[in-house]
Amino acid sequence: MTESMPEDIQPADLQQEHQKFIQDVGGWLRTHCCGALTLDDVDQEVCLMGWVQYRRDHGGLIFVDLRDCFGLTQVVFSPDTASGAHNNAHILRSEYVLAVRGKVRPRPAGMVNPAMPTGKIEVVAIDWKLLNTSKPPPFSVEERSETGENLRLAWRYLDLRRPRMQANLRLRHLVAQTVRRFLNENAFVEVETPMLTKSTPEGARDFLVPSRLNFGQFYALPQSPQLFKQLLMIGGFDRYFQIVRCFRDEDLRADRQPEFTQIDIEMSFVNENAVMCMAEGLMARVFSDVQGISLKRPFPVLSWDESMNRYGVDKPDTRFGLELHDITHIVYASAFKLFAAAKLVKAMKVTGGDAFTRKEIDECTEFVKIYGAQGLAWIKIKSGEWQSPVAKFLSERERYSIAQVLDLQQGDIVFFQAGEPAVVNAALGNLRLRLGEHLHLVSENSFNFLWVTDFPLYEYDNAEKRYVARHHPFTAPAHGHLERMLSDPENARARAYDLVLNGNEIGGGSIRIHSADVQRRMFAALGFSPDSAEKRFGFLLRALELGAPPHGGIAFGLDRLVMLLAGASSIRDVIAFPKTQKAACLLTDAPSGVASGQLCELGLRLREPAAET
Amino acid sequence: MTESMPEDIQPADLQQEHQKFIQDVGGWLRTHCCGALTLDDVDQEVCLMGWVQYRRDHGGLIFVDLRDCFGLTQVVFSPDTASGAHNNAHILRSEYVLAVRGKVRPRPAGMVNPAMPTGKIEVVAIDWKLLNTSKPPPFSVEERSETGENLRLAWRYLDLRRPRMQANLRLRHLVAQTVRRFLNENAFVEVETPMLTKSTPEGARDFLVPSRLNFGQFYALPQSPQLFKQLLMIGGFDRYFQIVRCFRDEDLRADRQPEFTQIDIEMSFVNENAVMCMAEGLMARVFSDVQGISLKRPFPVLSWDESMNRYGVDKPDTRFGLELHDITHIVYASAFKLFAAAKLVKAMKVTGGDAFTRKEIDECTEFVKIYGAQGLAWIKIKSGEWQSPVAKFLSERERYSIAQVLDLQQGDIVFFQAGEPAVVNAALGNLRLRLGEHLHLVSENSFNFLWVTDFPLYEYDNAEKRYVARHHPFTAPAHGHLERMLSDPENARARAYDLVLNGNEIGGGSIRIHSADVQRRMFAALGFSPDSAEKRFGFLLRALELGAPPHGGIAFGLDRLVMLLAGASSIRDVIAFPKTQKAACLLTDAPSGVASGQLCELGLRLREPAAET
Repeated sequence: MTESMPEDIQPADLQQEHQKFIQDVGGWLRTHCCGALTLDDVDQEVCLMGWVQYRRDHGGLIFVDLRDCFGLTQVVFSPDTASGAHNNAHILRSEYVLAVRGKVRPRPAGMVNPAMPTGKIEVVAIDWKLLNTSKPPPFSVEERSETGENLRLAWRYLDLRRPRMQANLRLRHLVAQTVRRFLNENAFVEVETPMLTKSTPEGARDFLVPSRLNFGQFYALPQSPQLFKQLLMIGGFDRYFQIVRCFRDEDLRADRQPEFTQIDIEMSFVNENAVMCMAEGLMARVFSDVQGISLKRPFPVLSWDESMNRYGVDKPDTRFGLELHDITHIVYASAFKLFAAAKLVKAMKVTGGDAFTRKEIDECTEFVKIYGAQGLAWIKIKSGEWQSPVAKFLSERERYSIAQVLDLQQGDIVFFQAGEPAVVNAALGNLRLRLGEHLHLVSENSFNFLWVTDFPLYEYDNAEKRYVARHHPFTAPAHGHLERMLSDPENARARAYDLVLNGNEIGGGSIRIHSADVQRRMFAALGFSPDSAEKRFGFLLRALELGAPPHGGIAFGLDRLVMLLAGASSIRDVIAFPKTQKAACLLTDAPSGVASGQLCELGLRLREPAAET
Repeated sequence: MTESMPEDIQPADLQQEHQKFIQDVGGWLRTHCCGALTLDDVDQEVCLMGWVQYRRDHGGLIFVDLRDCFGLTQVVFSPDTASGAHNNAHILRSEYVLAVRGKVRPRPAGMVNPAMPTGKIEVVAIDWKLLNTSKPPPFSVEERSETGENLRLAWRYLDLRRPRMQANLRLRHLVAQTVRRFLNENAFVEVETPMLTKSTPEGARDFLVPSRLNFGQFYALPQSPQLFKQLLMIGGFDRYFQIVRCFRDEDLRADRQPEFTQIDIEMSFVNENAVMCMAEGLMARVFSDVQGISLKRPFPVLSWDESMNRYGVDKPDTRFGLELHDITHIVYASAFKLFAAAKLVKAMKVTGGDAFTRKEIDECTEFVKIYGAQGLAWIKIKSGEWQSPVAKFLSERERYSIAQVLDLQQGDIVFFQAGEPAVVNAALGNLRLRLGEHLHLVSENSFNFLWVTDFPLYEYDNAEKRYVARHHPFTAPAHGHLERMLSDPENARARAYDLVLNGNEIGGGSIRIHSADVQRRMFAALGFSPDSAEKRFGFLLRALELGAPPHGGIAFGLDRLVMLLAGASSIRDVIAFPKTQKAACLLTDAPSGVASGQLCELGLRLREPAAET
């Protein structure tokens, strides 16, 4: 009949704290929240304020479930107790806002709702007051009602009244609070860095903000406070953090937002271990304070090479097996030309996969094409035989070696990829993730953290025909890789580390370059002329020449971390007012056209849309 | 010889907490911070890391004051202890960064510096390692060195190394922490609202952000999260806060920044008292936790009328007297036509002001012209006479009444203003502030809080020839003033309140309109057609029709609050990377030109500068 609120949004102490400020609306004093009353309060006269979740008329009485963010309380309007209050209550509809004065009494036997914290009592109305009406809402605020996401976003305030959204945003608050408490305790200082910054294109696309006072000039919204936090280290702050909004004007993928929140951290006089140790402490505190989960530390560490080898991706989900195996050395001289000619051949075994239908295998084949694969070779081990279109091309010796490496058993299926390493890894690595999900290999309640380290310093950008920084251009090269930065960029490694949770990159950082010479070498390796480096990053180079300490840091994506903690399926469910994939706010209708006078003041005009094509 | 760090940036517990993560730089472990060592540590081997504050060579020894953000420690390089370490130390210069291993020993008698927490010990170097060099800094990092602000801003990281800037930003951190702790304890939830929002011009000018994915459309950076926090109340959050960046594209006055930080608060089911009581509790907590000052509560309340009457301004500094007196009723029929013709005549007495020279009085006259005054009448009460160019125009009876009202004594001077009320109040009110400062009437260590309430709902905008909202268009009218909104806007009052500290408005808020009908009436009073109201604020009107609870809130300016707490003279001194009055960052050179491709992607082109004139 009524519905309980999730446990985690009813901290009794908060409800008590809530009473601290007098809440008088038109002379009425709110005495309790809607999740507070129990049998201990019987016979008390109380005043509640909230929304009508549900009204029903039964046996001459009117029942209303009154809701606020702390819970629900059943209110009874009875003609015997207060006939005026009862008469008027007929006007009440869903989402009307009211104040009710009444007396707490135990619910009659048989009417007790053990699932509700207030399920043993009800409040008999003595008097009530309408604080606001509501038009019929476009969807019900009840948890269970299914509503399309666009409707939820357009009427976000209604959606936010649901217990699940209340719980998600309160969880987010709790996470941020816990992060701050931990960092405060460990001598970190939160420093606010500018939002109106300099555009230094390298990496994602900047959002630009035209400057009215400086004609033809633009600020950029920060993609991260990277350079400012480094300048704070150079400014002697030693340990900095900030929970900060960042911006990227990208073509939005499924679960990205143009603005997102980062837990940004930097430390002076540290190496990788210090940052990773701090980050593990932070995660352990969040999981223990927020979820009561004790994390095992230290977290496992995988090198990037090993991660790519075993999982095909650089943020592996290690909650299940299905590891990839390199069989290039076995088939390098195979009669199967596809294998013999390939730079890399990898295989993945799925136990019990001989049950896959032809259709299921075809779906897998279609799936890997997303990642550039031409097709998907496979072999079923069934009734002692290798059933496969390709098995006949493999020699006895090759079969034997493959069976050894993969420890093949009856009932297995093996998938193969051969070709360019990037494609082989992406295709099999993502197929692994897909099968892990489809075959329900993932245990939902485990949180597998791991570090991936020793990343390549650069990656080659085919569009720009130059190397670009894999993390960012301020990442220090690995010890001993100073020469390689220019002579062998392909094999230069970075002092970078990513923190991966259940296959999601939730944090990433590095030890930074603190020498102006090394920083100049980095810019040279990226193809910047000295002039261009000076123009874009001269202020950094000068700062590095004025006593920059060794430093490094990390940043965590708060949205994704909270999403994982909340068990939500989208970061939009842990953001109060998110944007759609077209970067629009369906509630306020942002972005929107502006008055031509506004543009004129900024010294701008729109190009003709036609000129765009 | 050395200089101590301010007390407030050396919390011993932070220095202890600091040790929690291993800080290994190239195999060296930082064992202590530079503010930590005392006689208790004598004979310990330690490793410090920091900057050379100062090097001096004396008696064959080399002394270095090593600095980190926690303090200074004197390091001695002696040929007897470690000749290699001593020899190499000759290269050390100001702001070089180094790690030093050494042994703690008591300073020789006569060398003890009691002003320094580490002043009783020194560290004799055993070995050291250069972590970075520094070019000669453009100014000294020592506290006392005087440096022009533009130089400080251009080399901000050097400026940030100074103890005063370290202390200011750490104080800011502490204030933010304390605010969050108080609000957390009182059931408030911090919710992040969007930075990319809808432009709804009304009030200050928006910063615009062109949208690449939506041709010809723009986001606006928020001037405050006003509508979002109201939507959160409508969404059932009950008590919200956020420490949040806000933006205003104004022509910058002396101490404004284009981006600033607000402590933003909103509560449901409240009246003015609840919000003001909460705000007083918050301020009391901040002042007690941060400054050890116990504030007397409740704060005094002045109506806007009374504030204008007695002080001529709506944010009076009540740390000194010099109150204004309305003498219109005395001189309404005066022979002095200037007084008789005036709508308002006010007088301000300055005790001991008969010592003002003619030059000083002329300076006052020039000063009030800034506020639109034509001149400044005055009278000195000296040797029993009214010395003044205007005294002769006043009748005996007028003189008597003025003397009574102002309680005039020998040695007083009285200044007069007559004319339009706005000019009279602005001229005398600001003259009052100027004299309070020049005559040193302000006791520096007092913190006078007061509330100003009952503001006018509107003010007339001569440029736009219409009424505009004095606070913002979402402020509820005073009880019983619903009709006046349209029929007598001049005299409609608002349920608004400002918190004033020592003459600075540090917070302001209101009870909001929660009825769609009243909100429509407000838009009508501001001259919006129903269509235009719908286009700009339709989402709000719809939300108010779907069960909006009564709600209200307040916002504090964090920059100004911290400035006052820090005793700084500019908000730029409590912001890590502030902008100049031309809204430029002298460090990074933002804003700056961008590549034409970037504009092209946004569908924009620059107007010819010529077309601007």
